[in-house]
Amino acid sequence: MDVLKIADKEFNSRLFTGTGKFSSSQLMKDALLCSESELITVALKRVDVQDENDDILRHLDHPRINLLPNTSGVRDAKEAVFAAQLSREALQTNWVKLEIHPDPKYLLPDPIETLKAAEELVKLGFVVMPYIHADPVLCKRLEEVGVQCVMPLGAPIGSNKGLKTLEFLEIIIDQSNVPVIVDAGIGSPSHAAHAMEIGADAVLVNTAIAVSSHPVAMAEAFKLAVKAGRMAYNARLAPVRQKAEASSPLTSFLSEN
Amino acid sequence: MDVLKIADKEFNSRLFTGTGKFSSSQLMKDALLCSESELITVALKRVDVQDENDDILRHLDHPRINLLPNTSGVRDAKEAVFAAQLSREALQTNWVKLEIHPDPKYLLPDPIETLKAAEELVKLGFVVMPYIHADPVLCKRLEEVGVQCVMPLGAPIGSNKGLKTLEFLEIIIDQSNVPVIVDAGIGSPSHAAHAMEIGADAVLVNTAIAVSSHPVAMAEAFKLAVKAGRMAYNARLAPVRQKAEASSPLTSFLSEN
Amino acid sequence: MDVLKIADKEFNSRLFTGTGKFSSSQLMKDALLCSESELITVALKRVDVQDENDDILRHLDHPRINLLPNTSGVRDAKEAVFAAQLSREALQTNWVKLEIHPDPKYLLPDPIETLKAAEELVKLGFVVMPYIHADPVLCKRLEEVGVQCVMPLGAPIGSNKGLKTLEFLEIIIDQSNVPVIVDAGIGSPSHAAHAMEIGADAVLVNTAIAVSSHPVAMAEAFKLAVKAGRMAYNARLAPVRQKAEASSPLTSFLSEN
Amino acid sequence: MDVLKIADKEFNSRLFTGTGKFSSSQLMKDALLCSESELITVALKRVDVQDENDDILRHLDHPRINLLPNTSGVRDAKEAVFAAQLSREALQTNWVKLEIHPDPKYLLPDPIETLKAAEELVKLGFVVMPYIHADPVLCKRLEEVGVQCVMPLGAPIGSNKGLKTLEFLEIIIDQSNVPVIVDAGIGSPSHAAHAMEIGADAVLVNTAIAVSSHPVAMAEAFKLAVKAGRMAYNARLAPVRQKAEASSPLTSFLSEN
Repeated sequence: MDVLKIADKEFNSRLFTGTGKFSSSQLMKDALLCSESELITVALKRVDVQDENDDILRHLDHPRINLLPNTSGVRDAKEAVFAAQLSREALQTNWVKLEIHPDPKYLLPDPIETLKAAEELVKLGFVVMPYIHADPVLCKRLEEVGVQCVMPLGAPIGSNKGLKTLEFLEIIIDQSNVPVIVDAGIGSPSHAAHAMEIGADAVLVNTAIAVSSHPVAMAEAFKLAVKAGRMAYNARLAPVRQKAEASSPLTSFLSEN
Repeated sequence: MDVLKIADKEFNSRLFTGTGKFSSSQLMKDALLCSESELITVALKRVDVQDENDDILRHLDHPRINLLPNTSGVRDAKEAVFAAQLSREALQTNWVKLEIHPDPKYLLPDPIETLKAAEELVKLGFVVMPYIHADPVLCKRLEEVGVQCVMPLGAPIGSNKGLKTLEFLEIIIDQSNVPVIVDAGIGSPSHAAHAMEIGADAVLVNTAIAVSSHPVAMAEAFKLAVKAGRMAYNARLAPVRQKAEASSPLTSFLSEN
Repeated sequence: MDVLKIADKEFNSRLFTGTGKFSSSQLMKDALLCSESELITVALKRVDVQDENDDILRHLDHPRINLLPNTSGVRDAKEAVFAAQLSREALQTNWVKLEIHPDPKYLLPDPIETLKAAEELVKLGFVVMPYIHADPVLCKRLEEVGVQCVMPLGAPIGSNKGLKTLEFLEIIIDQSNVPVIVDAGIGSPSHAAHAMEIGADAVLVNTAIAVSSHPVAMAEAFKLAVKAGRMAYNARLAPVRQKAEASSPLTSFLSEN
Repeated sequence: MDVLKIADKEFNSRLFTGTGKFSSSQLMKDALLCSESELITVALKRVDVQDENDDILRHLDHPRINLLPNTSGVRDAKEAVFAAQLSREALQTNWVKLEIHPDPKYLLPDPIETLKAAEELVKLGFVVMPYIHADPVLCKRLEEVGVQCVMPLGAPIGSNKGLKTLEFLEIIIDQSNVPVIVDAGIGSPSHAAHAMEIGADAVLVNTAIAVSSHPVAMAEAFKLAVKAGRMAYNARLAPVRQKAEASSPLTSFLSEN
């Protein structure tokens, strides 16, 4: 089976999702279950960890679902490490999606603070999944400090623009020894399929599902597209050709008689 | 149900396929069955219509499959009409995929001869599915003479380049009163999903499946991608945004304490 | 010298322009002189041919400028031929830019009527410059009936989207025996340079100059860009490479000591 | 006048160039003079600084030309600082193009080491021009430590692929308080014009000029294209439109009679 392994966990689904922007918790639950996603990121801030009946956590309590707390909202490495520690205690998981984006307008990640925090969190025993710019050198440096995967962006978060970093994602995938998960910017199933076709190990999709007119149907569309892209990657795509090549024979059957 | 209707037929699958370039008839059959395609184009030239046991026809004899003879190889309207008549007699179908591409290098269709042939074939009672350049004005003129759909190209046949005519496909879809089927150039599941997301009614894929290293798996990948794209179209995609928009809340949960 | 020859005329400038959308005739004149354009298209409709002091004609009365009447506004071949004949009489030129675009929304040209009108106008002794979709087969057919150049579009008129038909412009340029002039869609000097770099013989620019905040400066920018693109085409561009290649030597000069 | 100011110098030309890959020093000199470039980067390694008659330096001894030593070949911040100090002594300039790219295959810059070196070099009194990935957050951090400009890449060095980082260059330009110079990847005059049109302050071009069949002509083409792009930026480009908009009046002049 074509499972994805990160740290000690195996995933049958290569579609990772998030919990933001849904219009209701019930709709979130329905969509995320339909997506068959097994790793779902949640902002610690949104969870009331004192409250056992917290709405989000209650809805995501499902045997297939692994929660992935993220550090969204922190501005530097120090805050990130603190947030990760809080989430480990609160959610009983040492997995963390490391997000450090000090800029409120484009929400782009800070490479310096991210590397610093990643190094420290690895030492503290975390499974670190860093959200970063599609910078191939940064990816290698993160790999060297022991992150379990890299999560380069396709385009700014929530922009739905697709793989605007394509040239660099291809280099990252070519060079990486850890799984590459395309995070941010994926706005449609075709974007997700494209990421998988070039060899990404998984994609993370949130906005495009949550703000669709029909989140449950859109979740299913992404599920199918991710599978399609992965299957095509495994079956190898036909090469792009400069000239046309006929599917059907060209010689006129009329003139041959 | 979201069926596609062309003339008097209804299709549950929006993936149309072709029979060219497969390495064996058995592999062709396996891949096309896996694709769940219900309309499969076949070049009349390749079929020995005298022979009841003709290899291709025998393999495609399945209750779900409708054969769509094409006129590949003809060079003008006159030859096309003659070929269509032969195929009607041989295959007992009045459906025809009208292809007139005199140029052997890029195999691009001739707009003038195609319109002329389409007009005559409609008068002769054919269900005409013309393969054409992504020319919105030509599409409207074909519609006026009574074709049952239009089949604009995404890129040259067999090039696998994808939707290189995107701007014009969108205009065609916006204006058309008959189904729009993107034909030629679709080289990967993400291309097929993209065509469906912009509102194409179906896609026709042949080369990308047939010349893949694993045609059966690739056929399934296209099947899923076409469904994904159609579902996303129906569920409405989230808009593309110039600025980022956070999935998770931005305000620092640390600073708020 | 790298002159462009069309019919019996030689052009030192490969930037053709138009007269529409300028906020004043004086501004039009200043911009067009600054562009150094030698072929300027004018809609017959806008000219009062009875009036020797017609504003547009008076402003364009310059030894370097050749007027190119266009048939904008006609809806079929018959109207186009009649319009061309009127313009020949009125402006004393047998050159005509053939434009037949019945659709008022996207203004895309009609391939069928354009070929029909072109054939008749050639017989009537006109130098025919047809505005068409970037359809390589149509271009060859127009060439066969005797047009003196082809004018495929880059994108819908006035859209400023650039070379959205790139794949097909390259095929047209590869196959054509008459000059290829990219018309419509060119919205910035970089688009114009790009068209010239791939081997277009000239470009026609109107909207992007006329509606700029500073049409005279923009005209000069286009003049430079067209020259730049042509020079690059003649000097041959360096090939695109998949891997990086250092401009400077890579080996560390430090480690070598 | 539209001059570009960096630190204490003013530049009339916004085309910066390099000295690598030319087939001869004479050809390099001819091309660079023709380009009118006023800032030319040179790898310290290539210069024999002991030798007053060093070939490259002798050819670049011209009142208009400012030499910009680069640190190409170094692998980390420490080596970069040492190289910059050597070059300051050798070439009598405190300007330095900071390049740290440990990876020999794609030559992409290291964000961490670059920031570290930039901070130290600024303290040592250098005018620091860092070559970096098109990472908007990194650009702001470099600005904060006092670099005099940022030099984000368009595509891998020597790839000639153009502005593959367009989305991020636009963000960088939007946010930057220091000049933004697009470096690496620019393979044709249209790419250079495009960079200027979106508001880059300058571009650096080397490979595309040096490896052209006619470097002198190509240098002139880039000179014109950079001017064209800058003029268009200043004159403001017309907006891209979804629908067509006629340059000439659409109403039929025939039907109005």
